[in-house]
Parts: sequence; C-alpha cells; structure tokens
Amino acid sequence: MQISGVSLIAGRAGEKTGPQFAALNPTTGEALGPAFFSASEQEVTLALEAAQMAFVAWRRSSGAERARLLHTIADRLDAAAGELAARAQLETALPEARLKGETQRTSNQLRMFARVVEEGSWVEARIDSALPDRKPLPRPDLRSMLQPLGPVVVFGASNFPLAFSVAGGDTASALAAGCPVVVKAHPAHPGTSELVGQILSESIKGCGAPNGLFSLLFDSGFAVGQALVEHPLTQAVAFTGSRRGGRALMDIAARRPHPIPCFAEMGSTNPIFVLPGALATRAMEIASGLYGSFTLGAGQFCTKPGMVFVPNGKQTQDLLAELRRLTQQSAGFTLLTPAIAANYRRSLQERALSGSQATEPTAPAGSLCSAAAALLETDFDTFLQQPGLSEEVFGPATLLIRCDGREAMLRAAEGLEGHLTATLLGTEEDLAASADLIAVLERKAGRVLFNGYPTGVEVCDAMVHGGPYPASSDRRFTSVGTRAILRFARPVCYQGFPQASLPEELRDENPRGILRMVDGITTQDPLKGSA
Amino acid sequence: MQISGVSLIAGRAGEKTGPQFAALNPTTGEALGPAFFSASEQEVTLALEAAQMAFVAWRRSSGAERARLLHTIADRLDAAAGELAARAQLETALPEARLKGETQRTSNQLRMFARVVEEGSWVEARIDSALPDRKPLPRPDLRSMLQPLGPVVVFGASNFPLAFSVAGGDTASALAAGCPVVVKAHPAHPGTSELVGQILSESIKGCGAPNGLFSLLFDSGFAVGQALVEHPLTQAVAFTGSRRGGRALMDIAARRPHPIPCFAEMGSTNPIFVLPGALATRAMEIASGLYGSFTLGAGQFCTKPGMVFVPNGKQTQDLLAELRRLTQQSAGFTLLTPAIAANYRRSLQERALSGSQATEPTAPAGSLCSAAAALLETDFDTFLQQPGLSEEVFGPATLLIRCDGREAMLRAAEGLEGHLTATLLGTEEDLAASADLIAVLERKAGRVLFNGYPTGVEVCDAMVHGGPYPASSDRRFTSVGTRAILRFARPVCYQGFPQASLPEELRDENPRGILRMVDGITTQDPLKGSA
Repeated sequence: MQISGVSLIAGRAGEKTGPQFAALNPTTGEALGPAFFSASEQEVTLALEAAQMAFVAWRRSSGAERARLLHTIADRLDAAAGELAARAQLETALPEARLKGETQRTSNQLRMFARVVEEGSWVEARIDSALPDRKPLPRPDLRSMLQPLGPVVVFGASNFPLAFSVAGGDTASALAAGCPVVVKAHPAHPGTSELVGQILSESIKGCGAPNGLFSLLFDSGFAVGQALVEHPLTQAVAFTGSRRGGRALMDIAARRPHPIPCFAEMGSTNPIFVLPGALATRAMEIASGLYGSFTLGAGQFCTKPGMVFVPNGKQTQDLLAELRRLTQQSAGFTLLTPAIAANYRRSLQERALSGSQATEPTAPAGSLCSAAAALLETDFDTFLQQPGLSEEVFGPATLLIRCDGREAMLRAAEGLEGHLTATLLGTEEDLAASADLIAVLERKAGRVLFNGYPTGVEVCDAMVHGGPYPASSDRRFTSVGTRAILRFARPVCYQGFPQASLPEELRDENPRGILRMVDGITTQDPLKGSA
Repeated sequence: MQISGVSLIAGRAGEKTGPQFAALNPTTGEALGPAFFSASEQEVTLALEAAQMAFVAWRRSSGAERARLLHTIADRLDAAAGELAARAQLETALPEARLKGETQRTSNQLRMFARVVEEGSWVEARIDSALPDRKPLPRPDLRSMLQPLGPVVVFGASNFPLAFSVAGGDTASALAAGCPVVVKAHPAHPGTSELVGQILSESIKGCGAPNGLFSLLFDSGFAVGQALVEHPLTQAVAFTGSRRGGRALMDIAARRPHPIPCFAEMGSTNPIFVLPGALATRAMEIASGLYGSFTLGAGQFCTKPGMVFVPNGKQTQDLLAELRRLTQQSAGFTLLTPAIAANYRRSLQERALSGSQATEPTAPAGSLCSAAAALLETDFDTFLQQPGLSEEVFGPATLLIRCDGREAMLRAAEGLEGHLTATLLGTEEDLAASADLIAVLERKAGRVLFNGYPTGVEVCDAMVHGGPYPASSDRRFTSVGTRAILRFARPVCYQGFPQASLPEELRDENPRGILRMVDGITTQDPLKGSA
C-alpha cells in the first residue's frame, strides 16, 4: 500500500490544500515522509453528507451484511499485519510484537462485533402484544428494538495506533450498530491511520456497502475535530485520550443546538490497594507485578496503575526496595510524542516539589521522546495534603503511598474521583475483611480487580472500560467489549403495525431466531397464537 | 392527611423560612391554602447528604426489599386515591375520573418496577469465565452487572400531577434501580405533591428503609432546582416539561465540574400523517379521533398531536368541515396555570399572524386559565416558509397542513425535528406503499404509530417515551416503561473475584435464578463446572 498523505472521503482521496504536517519518528526525532494535508471545512461536510446518505441505506442492512463487512476488514487487517506494524513502529516506537498483537486484537474485535450482529439479539427486541379486551382501555400492540443513531465521529487515540484508532473498538461497534463512521486521525500515527483507512475503504467497496460508511480526516490542529463534533449531521462522538481533550469535546457536544452523546474515555490513575495478607506473603512478587504493569507500553495505558496504597508493615520495606531496584535498573523508554514526553517530565518535576521521594535512573540519551521510569513514594498525610498527586501521569511512573492501617485505605478510597479500574491485591481472607472497601471501589471504578493488574483489558461480553467522570464522560457505557455497541443505538417503538411493515426482528414468527422479551418473558420462540 | 406547606427532608419537616407561594385554583383563579415555603440552600444540601447516606445502604438492598417498598407506596397511593384526587382537582382543574385513573397508573407503574427488580434480570448480568490455558495470555474471570448511579434529582411535571410527578415514573424507576430520590415539587400542584411525599416518607419508614431515600423540596422559583442539579452529590437528573426548562437543566448538568446524565423529556408536536386510503374511506372517523386526541386533558399531553398532514383529495373538505364543527362546538377548557394559558393564547396569536386560518369558539368566560380549543389550517407552502408553525403549542390546539401528494409528505417528514411520536393513519395498502415515509419517521421519533392516536402512552416493556432532541435530551433512553430504569444504572465489572465477595447476581450458582449471559449464552442455569 502507498501512503498518500491526504484524507479519505467516502472512498475518494481528499485534497492537498490544507495545512501540512508530518509524522515523527519518536526514536530518532526525525520527520517521516510523506507530508500529510489537513482536511478542509468543506471536506468535513462532504464526509458527513456522504455518511448521512450511507446511513439511510446501512441502517436497514441485515446483521449478515454488517458481519460480512466487519469480517472483510478483519481479514484484510490480518493480511496487512506486517506492513501495518512496520509503519506503526516508525511512528510510535512501540515494539513490533506488541503492534502485531494489537492488529490481532483489532481484527478480533471486529470479528466479535460481527458475531454480535450476526446473532442479532443485541437489538433487545421487546413485544407487548395487543390486549383488545382489557378494561378500561384496550392495549395496542407495541414492539420496540434498538436502531442505529446515525453518523458517528471517532477520534483515534495516540497510545493504541490500531486497537483504539481508525479501525478500533469505536469504529467496529459503530459500524456494527449500523452507524457510518468519520474518523479524525491521530496526528501521532497518520501513516498507520491512512493504511488502515485504505483497508476500510477497500473492504467497503469489496462488500458493495455504501462508500459513505467511512471517511478518514487528517488535521494538524484542532479545527477539523471541532468542526466534526459541531456538524449538525453528526449524531454521536467517541473519543479516547486526555481529560482535557475529552472534556473539550464533551463541552462542544453539549453546547450544540441539538446536543449529542459524546463518549469520552479519558484515562485515570487506577488505584491499587495492597492488603496486609498479600504484603506479608508475597511482597517480592507484588513488586515485580507492579513494575511490569506500570511500565507496560512505556506506561502509556489508560489503565496503568499510577497510585498504589501499601500498608506500613514488616514487608513494606522489602516491597519498596525491590520496586526501587527494578526501577533503577530499567532501560530507557521512548514515549509516543515529544508533547507526551514533555508532559511526563513536567509532571515528575511537580511531584518532586510536592515532597514525594523519587527513584529515577538517569534519563537515557536519545530523542525528545526519551524517558526514564520513575517510582515516587510518599506517606498518606502528604498524599491527603496534595490533591495533585492523585492525577494521572501518562508514562512509566507510579506513586506509592504508605498507609497506616485499614482506616487510611478506606479514607483514601472514599476520596477517589472516578477511575477506569481499582485493584485489590490480597489473600481471600484480606478480601473477606474488605467488604467496606469493595463497596466504595464499586462506586468509584468501572472495573474492580482482585489479584490482577489493570493493564490488560479483555475484549469480551462482561468487560467495562469506562467509569465515573473523569474516567469517562458517561459511566453508563463502556468503550471495550460487546456492550460498547449500546453507545450508538436507541430504542424505537412501533405501535399497531401490521406484520409486513415491521422490521424482521419484531415480526411474530421471529425469522432471525433472536432472543426477545415477549409479554414479559425472554424467549426465542415465535409469538404464540399468531396467524 | 394534613398539608403543612413545608419541604420533607429525609422524613423530617423542613423550615418555614424561605420565600412563600400558594397553589392556585385554575377554575376560580383563587389562591388555595396553606402557604408553601421554598426550601433553603442548606435544605438542598441536607436532602442530598441524607440521600448519599441512604445510597450507601440502599444500593446493596435486595430486589425483594426494593419491591416491598414500591408495593407499599403503591398500596398507600391507592388507599389515598380519593383524597389525592380531591386536592389535585382543586390545583389542576383536571376531572376527578382522570385523576383517579392517574393514581392507578402511578401505583401500577410502581408495581411494574417492583416486578422488574423482584425478578432481577434487569441487571444484565454477564459472566466470561476464566480461560487459564488460553494462549498467548490466559483470560481472567470477568463478571459484570448494572448497579445504581446514586442520588437522582426528579422534577415533577405540571400536566400529570401524579403519574409524572412526586411518585411518578422517574421516582419509581430510580428507587427500583437502587437510587435515592430528591424531588423538586412542581409549584402548580404543591398540595398534591406534599400528600404524595408524605405517603412516600411513611412507606419508607414502614419498610425500615433509610429515610434519606426520599426528600421533597418546594420552591417558588428556580433557585432550588438549579442548586439540586449543581450539587456535587447529585448523580443524575430526570425532568418532564418544556423545552426551555429541560435545556436549562441539561446545560447546568453538562457544565458541572463533574457532568452528570440529565434525562429531559421536553414534549413535541407529534406529527400525524393521514394517508390517501384512510382519507377516502373514513374521513369523519379520523376527524373525531383527531379532535378527541388533541383536546384530551385540555391538550396538555406531551404526546398531543399538534401537526396533521392531510393530502388534498375529495374527502379533505369533509374531514376539515367535521373538525371545524367539532372545534366550534367544543365547551371551554381550563388550563393548568395562568402562565400556560397565557402562552397558549400568545402562540395562537402568533400563528394567526403567520397566515394560518383558525377556527376557535369564543373563549369561555372564567379565570385566567380559561381557554378555547383551536383548529389551525394552512397549506404546505406556507408551512415550509414558517418554521415556527412546527413548534409545540401546549393546549387544545392543532395545526392541519394540506399537502399535494406523497412527495410533500415525505419532504415534511424529512424536515421534522425530533418528536416523541409520529403517526400514520391509513389502510394496510397505504402503509405498504409508505416504506420510505416509515424509514424517515423511525429516525425522527421514539414511537411510530399506525392507526392509533399518540396521546395514550402505555406503561409496558416495549414502550419508548423519548426521541431525538428536542423531544428528549438523549434518545438512547425512555422515561416510560421498564426500560426507564436503565437511565439510572451503570455496569460494574469484577475481575478475578472469589465467589463470596461477588454480588449474588454474579455467583456461579445463580441464587436469584436470573437470566445471565454466560460465555456468550443467555441462560438461567448455574455456571457449569463450578465447584
């Protein structure tokens, strides 16, 4: 595949007229060819008008048609895994194995949504059949099911150039729901974005689906993203990134003449609570587990544990000494962009001033993106006095907070903002004694873990990758797992409709064989007594 | 029961210090005793702090406990139906039979949610069991279910003093979800609100549930409502009322440091499309059906049909003549408040200036709340030129638009904003020929009706009472029917938890016997292979 540097609008190449920018190799600090051209305001409108036209057709597409498209994209991504990893490695400095694994995660995600829509029960069909003899008033026949919202604007994330970017979970779930997608490419990996965009466009053509189902727009700044969210045809927004960026989009979406849902996953500090039994029995194992988790992907995971509460106890010093040793010995890291690296360094400096003790190896020589791991330590009182310490540091750093006793842990938990995850490391006895702590953490996080590390986000039915603000914009939804499709769908009710005019999913005979709630009972059976 | 005129805060009487206001008898225009006292800012905080305390306990309550409370409230409402109707009639001028029916609807709604939470499957439990041998990485055990959001602020609506007010669908669904409720009473029926509030408080005491589960606050203006939505402990808002009021609350909710979901149902014009076959075969029947629907409850229904598209045809004049006759002969109406009546009259005057022909009987003598029915007529071209004509007029008026042919109807449909409902009146042949029109209306409304009138909103599983903005703030939800509970719940995921520390709904043996998605299969069975 060739990288052309222009936006892709409903299967056609965009113009070479807008402001230019280049991808940067974080390892060398050098610009990568070719030049990329920002989309124009007119191209924003073209993309959304094409999306709206595609929506009118695609919203009525069958589960099988949608599944075929998703499978086609998945297969083509897999076939291009080497090519994608090669470019993504240049643009992100992430290792090849990780990038190939991420491509597989991305294609698996697409296949998972293909299964969901092919099976079909996700539409939550409900039928309340007519009760013509009910007194005082008869009940009409009422049937409802989920239907797609319309064009969705997706913002690619910097830290997962495949799984949370152009063909990532947001795009997969929106297409599965029946929504066209306009992606604003992340400028940190424009080449990878274009390659994936070409795969999407070619897949759409190959399946005979409407071209307007997908567009990819480049931008050197913020104008294109803002115009996309403001455009009257946009019906929903999905974003993964910083709190500042997410909140800006939330505010634009809420201020529109016709406000639209904006699901922003804005990362979090993902507290870990080390419980006394675990500390007593496996301090060294916890040290190495923590180190592995907070430095995974150079600490650039939304679920990186950035805050670890450890009870003061006999083995606390063992755990700390081992963590310091691992941190001190760590090789250097290369972060995704100079801006991320600069933010990382500034955050560490701020924390140094706030009285936390730092273990940092000498920063490695290298480009503007080079960074060293950092272990920060403080006590509970200092932590309470410095609210800034609980904020996310994006990069390979974590903060260890020494606590005296259970009460301090409970108080720390009560004081938490919303997080994507909260983790307990303990024995089963620890956990049984921690019902109060669990009860607090359930309110504070989308996912609560026991004896695991939060950096792995499984893509499955039960996953929740969201959480109370500021972890996400709306804790009622998730951006990972099959539930993610619910962000882009709405119930529509049909009253008194003859069979022939109903969507298939709502007809008496249940031709799709889906699970439906019929007169209060969930069943795959046809509606009884129907003619 | 005695009406005291003070707010009810977690089971205790509020203070008599705030600005006073009185209920008004719309029939006589006279003030009704006693005086009501606006809540103070401190009382807002007291109510929400009590709600938060109650939440910590109530979120863990069983379905049976919640059902018991909901049944108790329902039984007590039924027992007080006569007393409630007597006061509500004085405050709203709605007829006794309607108010008694509305009490029954209210108690039935509470019982419906009792059934939902007692059965328990509404929590959408999902289990992905561990795959320890999976390559390259094992899958941890992941389980998720819906849990309550926290304290919910509910705004009573003026037009349904029982079913959409203090113990209405918002309160019922929030309590069922496990959320405490703070109601801002609608000042148009404060006495009815207090009586229902007392029933709620007594029911909570009788069930031994936490007092903070419910508070009722009065206000003569907007300060209390604004303070409630701004309060950091508030986790969601539910509102039924005007577009202006709903948008104001949406904006406050979105601007908070920690934004929260605000479900506002803001009414709509509920277009009706009369199709040629129906016009040819039953013009007179349609005239009387339309008249009945647009004047029901003095036209003060969110689902009142305020816009009727009729094809020009042989029978158009018959339909119009009959509608004019019915309108001309109608007795006077008494609207809920002087402000509603003044708005109604102003809206009709504006429409008269915009070139629509009006049929209005002489306005009846009476109070400031008196109003006459109005039939407005215009042609399609005028309708297109005057966008204001498509806005809601709250009161017993409708606008009939004569259209030339199918194309005009389709164009009218494409131009619609979001509505709660859209209705087709036709023969089955009409409907079969209207697939394109249906496809447009599905995108524009939460509920699409065939050969019915939208003013009846059935309370059932399949109902959708919502719709694209400005009909509601978020078309992904409904405020009527069992789905309404989903507004107040969020998924929480547990990873790697031992059985004993999981909520009952997620344990292997499925002690509640609920439907769960287990490894992709929906089942009531216990998890297989569990020890």
